[in-house]
Amino acid sequence: MADIHALLSEIVGDSNLFAGDSIHEDYTRDEALGVAPVRPAFLAKPASTDEVARIIAAANEHRVPVTARGSGTGLSGACVPQPDGILISFERMSRILEIDTENHIAVVEPGVTLEQLNAETAKHGLVYPVFPGEQSASLGGNVATNAGGMRAIKYGVTRHQVLGLTAVLGTGETITTGGKFVKSTSGYDLTQLIIGSEGTLAIATQAILKLYPRAPHAATLLAPFRSLDEITKAVPKIVTSGVDPMILEYIDFVAMAGILNNAGLDLGITDEIKQSALAYLVVVLEDRKPERLQEDIEEVGMLIDSLGALEIYSLSPTAGQQLIEAREKVFWSAKAAGVNDIIDLVVPRASISDYIQKVTAAAQESGSFLVGCGHVGDGNVHMSVIQADDAKRAELMETIFRLGTEMGGAVSGEHGIGTEKRRYFLAHTSPESLALQRRIKAAFDPAGILNPGVLFD
Amino acid sequence: MADIHALLSEIVGDSNLFAGDSIHEDYTRDEALGVAPVRPAFLAKPASTDEVARIIAAANEHRVPVTARGSGTGLSGACVPQPDGILISFERMSRILEIDTENHIAVVEPGVTLEQLNAETAKHGLVYPVFPGEQSASLGGNVATNAGGMRAIKYGVTRHQVLGLTAVLGTGETITTGGKFVKSTSGYDLTQLIIGSEGTLAIATQAILKLYPRAPHAATLLAPFRSLDEITKAVPKIVTSGVDPMILEYIDFVAMAGILNNAGLDLGITDEIKQSALAYLVVVLEDRKPERLQEDIEEVGMLIDSLGALEIYSLSPTAGQQLIEAREKVFWSAKAAGVNDIIDLVVPRASISDYIQKVTAAAQESGSFLVGCGHVGDGNVHMSVIQADDAKRAELMETIFRLGTEMGGAVSGEHGIGTEKRRYFLAHTSPESLALQRRIKAAFDPAGILNPGVLFD
Repeated sequence: MADIHALLSEIVGDSNLFAGDSIHEDYTRDEALGVAPVRPAFLAKPASTDEVARIIAAANEHRVPVTARGSGTGLSGACVPQPDGILISFERMSRILEIDTENHIAVVEPGVTLEQLNAETAKHGLVYPVFPGEQSASLGGNVATNAGGMRAIKYGVTRHQVLGLTAVLGTGETITTGGKFVKSTSGYDLTQLIIGSEGTLAIATQAILKLYPRAPHAATLLAPFRSLDEITKAVPKIVTSGVDPMILEYIDFVAMAGILNNAGLDLGITDEIKQSALAYLVVVLEDRKPERLQEDIEEVGMLIDSLGALEIYSLSPTAGQQLIEAREKVFWSAKAAGVNDIIDLVVPRASISDYIQKVTAAAQESGSFLVGCGHVGDGNVHMSVIQADDAKRAELMETIFRLGTEMGGAVSGEHGIGTEKRRYFLAHTSPESLALQRRIKAAFDPAGILNPGVLFD
Repeated sequence: MADIHALLSEIVGDSNLFAGDSIHEDYTRDEALGVAPVRPAFLAKPASTDEVARIIAAANEHRVPVTARGSGTGLSGACVPQPDGILISFERMSRILEIDTENHIAVVEPGVTLEQLNAETAKHGLVYPVFPGEQSASLGGNVATNAGGMRAIKYGVTRHQVLGLTAVLGTGETITTGGKFVKSTSGYDLTQLIIGSEGTLAIATQAILKLYPRAPHAATLLAPFRSLDEITKAVPKIVTSGVDPMILEYIDFVAMAGILNNAGLDLGITDEIKQSALAYLVVVLEDRKPERLQEDIEEVGMLIDSLGALEIYSLSPTAGQQLIEAREKVFWSAKAAGVNDIIDLVVPRASISDYIQKVTAAAQESGSFLVGCGHVGDGNVHMSVIQADDAKRAELMETIFRLGTEMGGAVSGEHGIGTEKRRYFLAHTSPESLALQRRIKAAFDPAGILNPGVLFD
């Protein structure tokens, strides 16, 4: 370990290298509820791709685990380091290298935050459209987890915005992938393979991102329904109408009460409505022309009225924004309320209601409680699991993942697998697929130094 | 070989197995200009994923090359078989298994053609938005080459529509990837890795495709400009305006003359315009509301007028469709005219004009001629190379690929590498990336039986 200490010090300089107790506790964890903090042997803060490559080459030679860390806002434990490992933190690689207004492209270092990028693109009337709910999250972390968020129904997820990467393999070799273009059939799409691989294949040190014109006007409808089933049946009709919603969310009545309470929001929902509504639909539209927005909002309002909405609230821009912001903070409220676990399984969107009925029945049987809200347009359901007993909770979780994957779903829509959902990922992926994924891992990282314990055990 | 004959016969039945001279000449080639036809040892027409898996398992055991073939409309030689190999043709696997109107999904077998799918989705007011110009192309082929086409500026390419696959690895093992959802972070994205891999990693036997509401109204503007440079400068302004064009194409004056001639089209372009226009911009917008379409067309018309268009032709729906169809057939005219090679390099869209100036200069120097048109919104330039001398042409091609990749471009935007562009792909990809791609290939296909000679030599 003395060897590697000297090597790292030579690469990043003493002032950017920390060891043992000098590493701040913040670097030992992310926001996953069930993952214990781990202090790494070393924390290195490189300033360039070259320094990252040299760190990884040294780690590869000495067989030392390497974990990359962005802002630490992840929910799966994927940036929690190994006790004998090196943690690479990107706070010194947080520059927006370019906003290219002709190609509508941003080139960023991994430590850039969504907030930072959003402020910069706004100056040019452009937008990077991934809003996963936590604006302090880093682009490097977003790439590693294929971050999603509420606007995915219109814009897709991180995977659809990243056009190219500079990345360092587990061997210490650096590759560049893709470029400032959307179309390419020139060999295997390494960009897409690295996105969502949670730091187990390569560590991205630069990303080429697609930008869009920023629509200046947005409007929000909130509609309580008697049941979630009515909402999931309304969704394809809203999409088919062609209005192209930016956000389509559902919030169950318990989550809604929490959201309104925590944010001190009063949207004028009457007690009568509160008593009969089991779920709420949120629709946000955007447009460059206010009159079209108004017309579309009226059209969606009439449509959801005809589909059983108990009431339709057209929110003021301020109230609309407050509701979305409060919805984005729902994880923090859940965490503060002592929720025991969270699940973000994705199912075909038409199966959401069936999925929730089945998992709710399973929860009742085990004396547990589920609170939820989710991206109803994408089939991505966020559920808080309240059950303090570890054995009971484990059994319920297993049932939920089995039910969801049996419906054609996947273990995680956007939080990722990390270490926390690993057992479910391993249990619900075919042996052939897992073996193939391990071989792919070995192609990138033959010594297995990149984020060991994440995805695979 | 007698062994494998008996095995294949057992799997697909004698009536679906052909050997030697009983294999029709159509199966020996695709549409690539410079690839010689090859008759395979066997042609097998399986009827199910299971049969495909058994064929590949047998081929793997006996180390026999396997090539998959859709409609044979490819332009890179990727479905031209090996003389000692098995060609798998999907004409018996050409069913649309499902149009799911709630999730907006189609599930198809690889032999389904774009035309067939388009007719079926139209019945439900939905559309599969990839139109690569040849409607007889198969979805299996589209997946293998990550087919693009003119609507990519709005909808993206095949990669953005395929949500899941059933695919057989080189080992004969079958995996399923993804599902009826857009969001997922649950292990490596095998779907994306297989798309565009040109049959070298796995053979897809089923695909889950994303559908969209079909916009009922479209309108086309044609605008001659003095130079291509003016067109490429206009493109970001059109995109920034927020009108969301479905098609943004340029056609150079030579290609335009050919298109109009071949289609017998008279769009009312005066001789004066024809003499001063070096390039034409085509803009197609679509909308669900005719009045919005009209408004947007007027807005774009005024914008391009202010950006130097010599004239603006607002085409009738019939003329607009004829122009796009004639543009789609440009490859066939080029082929009939005896063009010697075609290139579909992609560059950052703002670099198109610079790229074309440089390659045109190189062509003049070598006494060659380039004719072009392309997806100006995507940076994907289609060029016909006219130079009958093999040595001179090879030198010019090498210069063109060097110039394009030096500008941050990639060898192929949508045609793929196959065997025809392999030398340029190998020359302009870094050794680290190539070595990694070979290791990935080995992870899927350890014996190297899937499409040997494609991508790698």
